[in-house]
Amino acid sequence: MSAPLYLDHNATTPVDPVVLDAMLPFLTAQFANPSATYESGRLARRAIEQARDQVAAAVDADPSEVIFTASGSEANNLLIQGLVRAHRAETGTAVSLTCAATEHPCVQAPMRALQGEGCSFCELDVDGDGRVSPQAMASCPATTTLASVMLANNETGVVQPVSALAESFKASHAGWFHTDAVQAFGKHPLSFRQLQARGVSALTISGHKVAGPKGAAALIRDRALPLQPLIYGGGQEAGLRSGTENVAAIVGLGLACERAAADLEHRMQQARAAQTALEQALRQRGAVIFGAGAERLPNTTYAAFPGLDGETLVSLLDRQHVAISSGAACGSGKAGVSAVLTAMGVDPVLAKGAIRISLGMMSHAASDQQTVARFIAQLDVVLSQLQRFAAVA
Amino acid sequence: MSAPLYLDHNATTPVDPVVLDAMLPFLTAQFANPSATYESGRLARRAIEQARDQVAAAVDADPSEVIFTASGSEANNLLIQGLVRAHRAETGTAVSLTCAATEHPCVQAPMRALQGEGCSFCELDVDGDGRVSPQAMASCPATTTLASVMLANNETGVVQPVSALAESFKASHAGWFHTDAVQAFGKHPLSFRQLQARGVSALTISGHKVAGPKGAAALIRDRALPLQPLIYGGGQEAGLRSGTENVAAIVGLGLACERAAADLEHRMQQARAAQTALEQALRQRGAVIFGAGAERLPNTTYAAFPGLDGETLVSLLDRQHVAISSGAACGSGKAGVSAVLTAMGVDPVLAKGAIRISLGMMSHAASDQQTVARFIAQLDVVLSQLQRFAAVA
Repeated sequence: MSAPLYLDHNATTPVDPVVLDAMLPFLTAQFANPSATYESGRLARRAIEQARDQVAAAVDADPSEVIFTASGSEANNLLIQGLVRAHRAETGTAVSLTCAATEHPCVQAPMRALQGEGCSFCELDVDGDGRVSPQAMASCPATTTLASVMLANNETGVVQPVSALAESFKASHAGWFHTDAVQAFGKHPLSFRQLQARGVSALTISGHKVAGPKGAAALIRDRALPLQPLIYGGGQEAGLRSGTENVAAIVGLGLACERAAADLEHRMQQARAAQTALEQALRQRGAVIFGAGAERLPNTTYAAFPGLDGETLVSLLDRQHVAISSGAACGSGKAGVSAVLTAMGVDPVLAKGAIRISLGMMSHAASDQQTVARFIAQLDVVLSQLQRFAAVA
Repeated sequence: MSAPLYLDHNATTPVDPVVLDAMLPFLTAQFANPSATYESGRLARRAIEQARDQVAAAVDADPSEVIFTASGSEANNLLIQGLVRAHRAETGTAVSLTCAATEHPCVQAPMRALQGEGCSFCELDVDGDGRVSPQAMASCPATTTLASVMLANNETGVVQPVSALAESFKASHAGWFHTDAVQAFGKHPLSFRQLQARGVSALTISGHKVAGPKGAAALIRDRALPLQPLIYGGGQEAGLRSGTENVAAIVGLGLACERAAADLEHRMQQARAAQTALEQALRQRGAVIFGAGAERLPNTTYAAFPGLDGETLVSLLDRQHVAISSGAACGSGKAGVSAVLTAMGVDPVLAKGAIRISLGMMSHAASDQQTVARFIAQLDVVLSQLQRFAAVA
């Protein structure tokens, strides 16, 4: 049996041991509640504020613009529901929401749910590579209160032209623009300040996608953006997210963000070289690469072998101890065709074959080319198993 | 310098080393996303379901009744906001909410916020010991859709007669009854099934109050209770709480709950003996004990020395490395008089003196009496400092 091969980093990443080391004191001796006024409480508070500084620096924002949450899903829901309710309370007017057809469910689903509270909702079409065009963006309803287009797609890795989209939106709309940067952060350049100059007022990042722990994420937002809390209570996070802070996870998020922003150029080059080798090998074996005409994250390859079922491939590779995904692994194991590929106009028969290989980019270990070679060797074992099966059947 | 003395277990508890050991694999090798279909993902899913079984067993509920959240505050907000929105969507009728005047902010604040969405809100008076009477409960608005009364108060430790209150409420109301059991669980008997027989349809518990980690809590609810999610997205937790699960924290919560429910009788007796000794010593030094006429948690003592400021006492004890609270430490360090004591009709001058000593009940180490003796010795140092200061001034 060969050593396990984990190639599903877009679903989640292993926690960097350095990050875990930074967290452990807060799971042991430094366990105090950061709201406590005695010394150990004040130290816990300081650790949270240091993590806030780290996150802010990593995304080029001010610490006062950072709101910690427990997940990217929570951060996106806080932004969407919080803005809608604050806007309604302030203006009493109806709210229109817009997002791309390829958004993650944690953006699409709260927008759809708010239709039940009288909001209107518009889904923007994407092109064959999964991109929203600035023209489509400009044509979204004039009353749009909030538009959200992700920086990079979790399945395809396709990078949206968010700066151009925000600019196009702001030229003709009074509403706010948000980008879900959960998949892009740590794999693509990200500056909140630069995006803000083009019209972006909020973005979301998550710790467990960048070698931090599950249980901590952040909404970064312009303080002018009206926002009501999703969770009311003791008033933590400047009243915007109540509940005892998960100090250890927040500390882990801070350090993970610092490391995810460091040495990005080099890590991107390394991943890009591995991606090129991987996709060449996949194409040689007959695969189609989705979103290949667009700029993509250097760690993400979404492909299909015509005539082969994606779930079957994932399952056979699993028996070889190779972990890849057949689609968006963030959701709860849904079968069927990827909504992202459907939005891109991919033939449903081909879409059923989709597999996602997402390389690790948070480590500086130069193992990517070797990882690709190991993956291809395992893939060949599985492909020849399938050929033998087809020959017998 | 004497060893630090932590007597603020109602704010948060140290993580049991056994619990941390159970968590660590999920922060290292077993890091997979539980939504992934390959082997490591399935193992993570299984770990979550095992934790669900442990939580259910600990509170005498069915695993299908358990919804994991990231905090008790989130669980309470999910119940309150989720029920209100589901009820409104189903019936289109107005919603009335009721809670005790002494509820935690994470119950009161979402109820108040929902007033902005057209809900009516009623706060129930408490007696001098902080209890709601069955008569007061019966007299809450006939249209009440949801009533919430905590099982035990975080500041005073006073146990509400929840079974009697739920029975009284259900006899005259068609609405739902919820109890926040965050402080009671692990320190007081708790059976969801028994409470349900009296009319309780939901309860909340949290991991970090019972030697589990921060970052995991649970809402236990009757499946007949209508509920919309607070966080929409990938559909985790049967669609009621989306977002990648914090597997390590959930595993920790499961084991912590199992241990918090075990050997409860013995641990309560032990804590009760320490509490009796503590309160005798406090009274000998002139202190008033709040809620002394009511049944209270055996680990919680809320007291004031007439003429002495609570914050000053907390601060001077902190210099002796003794950690106690001057009020509810779950909130974010608010000054002023405790709302709980105000609701109990305590003279505001006396209330300003409030200090809360909350003993650890999750360990089986028989150190409670010794802990109390050490605390009283440190208190005496501080009290004599204050006397000397008063003599000089």
